[in-house]
Amino acid sequence: MSFAALAGQLAEVGRLCYARGWALGTSGNFSAVVGRTPLTLAITTSGVDKGVLEPGHIVEIDEHGRVVGGAGTPSAETTLHLAIVRSRGAGAVLHTHSIWSTILSDAAGDPGGGDGLAIDGYEMLKGLDGVRTHEHREWLPILENTQDWSAAVPRIEATLREHPEVHGFLIRRHGLYTWGRDLAEARRQVEVFEFLFEVLGRNRGATWQP
Amino acid sequence: MSFAALAGQLAEVGRLCYARGWALGTSGNFSAVVGRTPLTLAITTSGVDKGVLEPGHIVEIDEHGRVVGGAGTPSAETTLHLAIVRSRGAGAVLHTHSIWSTILSDAAGDPGGGDGLAIDGYEMLKGLDGVRTHEHREWLPILENTQDWSAAVPRIEATLREHPEVHGFLIRRHGLYTWGRDLAEARRQVEVFEFLFEVLGRNRGATWQP
Amino acid sequence: MSFAALAGQLAEVGRLCYARGWALGTSGNFSAVVGRTPLTLAITTSGVDKGVLEPGHIVEIDEHGRVVGGAGTPSAETTLHLAIVRSRGAGAVLHTHSIWSTILSDAAGDPGGGDGLAIDGYEMLKGLDGVRTHEHREWLPILENTQDWSAAVPRIEATLREHPEVHGFLIRRHGLYTWGRDLAEARRQVEVFEFLFEVLGRNRGATWQP
Amino acid sequence: MSFAALAGQLAEVGRLCYARGWALGTSGNFSAVVGRTPLTLAITTSGVDKGVLEPGHIVEIDEHGRVVGGAGTPSAETTLHLAIVRSRGAGAVLHTHSIWSTILSDAAGDPGGGDGLAIDGYEMLKGLDGVRTHEHREWLPILENTQDWSAAVPRIEATLREHPEVHGFLIRRHGLYTWGRDLAEARRQVEVFEFLFEVLGRNRGATWQP
Repeated sequence: MSFAALAGQLAEVGRLCYARGWALGTSGNFSAVVGRTPLTLAITTSGVDKGVLEPGHIVEIDEHGRVVGGAGTPSAETTLHLAIVRSRGAGAVLHTHSIWSTILSDAAGDPGGGDGLAIDGYEMLKGLDGVRTHEHREWLPILENTQDWSAAVPRIEATLREHPEVHGFLIRRHGLYTWGRDLAEARRQVEVFEFLFEVLGRNRGATWQP
Repeated sequence: MSFAALAGQLAEVGRLCYARGWALGTSGNFSAVVGRTPLTLAITTSGVDKGVLEPGHIVEIDEHGRVVGGAGTPSAETTLHLAIVRSRGAGAVLHTHSIWSTILSDAAGDPGGGDGLAIDGYEMLKGLDGVRTHEHREWLPILENTQDWSAAVPRIEATLREHPEVHGFLIRRHGLYTWGRDLAEARRQVEVFEFLFEVLGRNRGATWQP
Repeated sequence: MSFAALAGQLAEVGRLCYARGWALGTSGNFSAVVGRTPLTLAITTSGVDKGVLEPGHIVEIDEHGRVVGGAGTPSAETTLHLAIVRSRGAGAVLHTHSIWSTILSDAAGDPGGGDGLAIDGYEMLKGLDGVRTHEHREWLPILENTQDWSAAVPRIEATLREHPEVHGFLIRRHGLYTWGRDLAEARRQVEVFEFLFEVLGRNRGATWQP
Repeated sequence: MSFAALAGQLAEVGRLCYARGWALGTSGNFSAVVGRTPLTLAITTSGVDKGVLEPGHIVEIDEHGRVVGGAGTPSAETTLHLAIVRSRGAGAVLHTHSIWSTILSDAAGDPGGGDGLAIDGYEMLKGLDGVRTHEHREWLPILENTQDWSAAVPRIEATLREHPEVHGFLIRRHGLYTWGRDLAEARRQVEVFEFLFEVLGRNRGATWQP
């Protein structure tokens, strides 16, 4: 698909995420692979209001994050997108920043094996790529937040290598990253995870009173 | 009503449920009876994003679930739709997959007589077919989730036979099924149940502080 | 204002309330005074989906609730609307049926003086007719639900007489009634009350953790 | 930018805030600087429904709050807007009145140094002007509500002087004030704060259960 076509689709995904409250205050960033040899990505520019995201807010970058098409500064988290595309062979990477992912990334913990959020037994999990039954346990690593993503890339690549089965990860108090073969799959996984975060989040502390 | 007309209405119901957050991530499926002799159903195809549901995403199937009109694979839960149409004489069957139905299907239990969710004393219950007073106790069976609906059909038909008064049921961590004489009635019942689930869900664990 | 104009405005109010989730499943009913001598009201008909409310779903009734214009059965709660118009001289009466009003009407109680919900100290209270400061205590009577509103009218008229200062009341597990000189004022009061119900409802059981 | 252009933008911001539930029941008021010498502001008029806010509902005022363009009574909180513009050199001032800001302004307290709400460690904080890292502690003063804003202005100016770093403040049970160099920045900060209020509010009293 051409850069122009992907830019249009990314803009639409951005407006949708904004409407749902998953990309308020210029948060969130979204990318899709334009070509593989050499690698180029369409990616949102920095500081744009996602509620009025237009194709003109999307730039094309090369594998080093340099702008090769369009005008603007690519997202500050561009290196993260490139790392995910390389590690996973993803065709699209979406980062949302919702209320519930922020809350859960902060509250959850896994005493035994590094921080992470486990979700299991829900039908909705079947919306994740390759999951065929609700009897599935999805585990999302929780990475510490940073302002230097270039320096953090080796850590993220190591996490993705150690956990080849994961469909996404959380950044502490910063939201969700997920990806897919194409934008439609990545977007579906955003909805799946955001739904499940809300289920888990609303369940916290509540006990049933018949 | 013709298949084409019902397909248009099902698409509209799907987009509405998506907008309310009751059919995210390609979840949810919806059907309506086209003819009785022989039985044919208009039903959503598998894996479609309900936010952009169009009549072209609806197929017509016969009583064995075989496609007889339109193109696509009918929902994996087609046998469930057919079982409900046969058991209840329903004209439309709607399956939503909301946050609150997922939570309540998991948390609720009825120690005395099988799992289920009881709702009583609410005015909103009068939105259910045949209910004339708020002094009504609705009880929704909770069925275990499965990936083999064909095998589960006898169990569901037995549940519907044993409880002829129910207007819907929950599937564990998977959402709501309800039905009606026509799409309008089924859709109204979806709204009634989703409203009541949210009331019950938000009441969990909360005590009033005057 | 003419019946036709009021019917158009009532339809718009209905669609707005539906969109906010305050009139799901055909719940809610809305009226406005067309003429005073003799008294005639424009009022929603029974069982209509408020999401697609059109002027054709509104009828004109006389002081006895008889249809004198348009086609359809007026709301089952017509006698309640007429009683409020007579007791208060209201120009418009709105009944919404939201999640939070349902929850609060059930949970709240006032051991000392009959059931009711007190709200005080909020700036938003100034959106109620005649309230000029946030240092105001609004008290909403909570009436028991019934299916025979004609028989309940004397009780409601007595409550309105005893509490001339109230701007609305709750019906147990059934929602809010409020009114105003005209539709704009009544609609503003719906928003004020629904906002405050949500504030009180979300505050239940929560303690601040700095 | 001309008064006409700013009036159009303010109307759009108002409708957006209404849609998000941050300006129900005629609450909320919004302004932007038209000229500096002499100072003139475009500001919303009093008692207007923000869901249908139009440029005709915006007036131009001088530094004393007198109307110099358009028709209508400027917001009762006009002196507050003028004080913020003078103290901060702001180009736009937005006051929203959301559920969560109302709740948090009431519940939060800071025993050591006057009432206020602290928010720290969230990525979303980087949406505030000049904040470059999530390792930031934002503190919002909470001011007591009043019906005499002219008399309260010295207190507010003192608070802004003592805390030159703040990006907004809360009024007890009355909502948020924030500002920016222009409307786009002020609006972004509204979204940032409302997001963070919801995160903090939903976290109250909840403990994680793995």
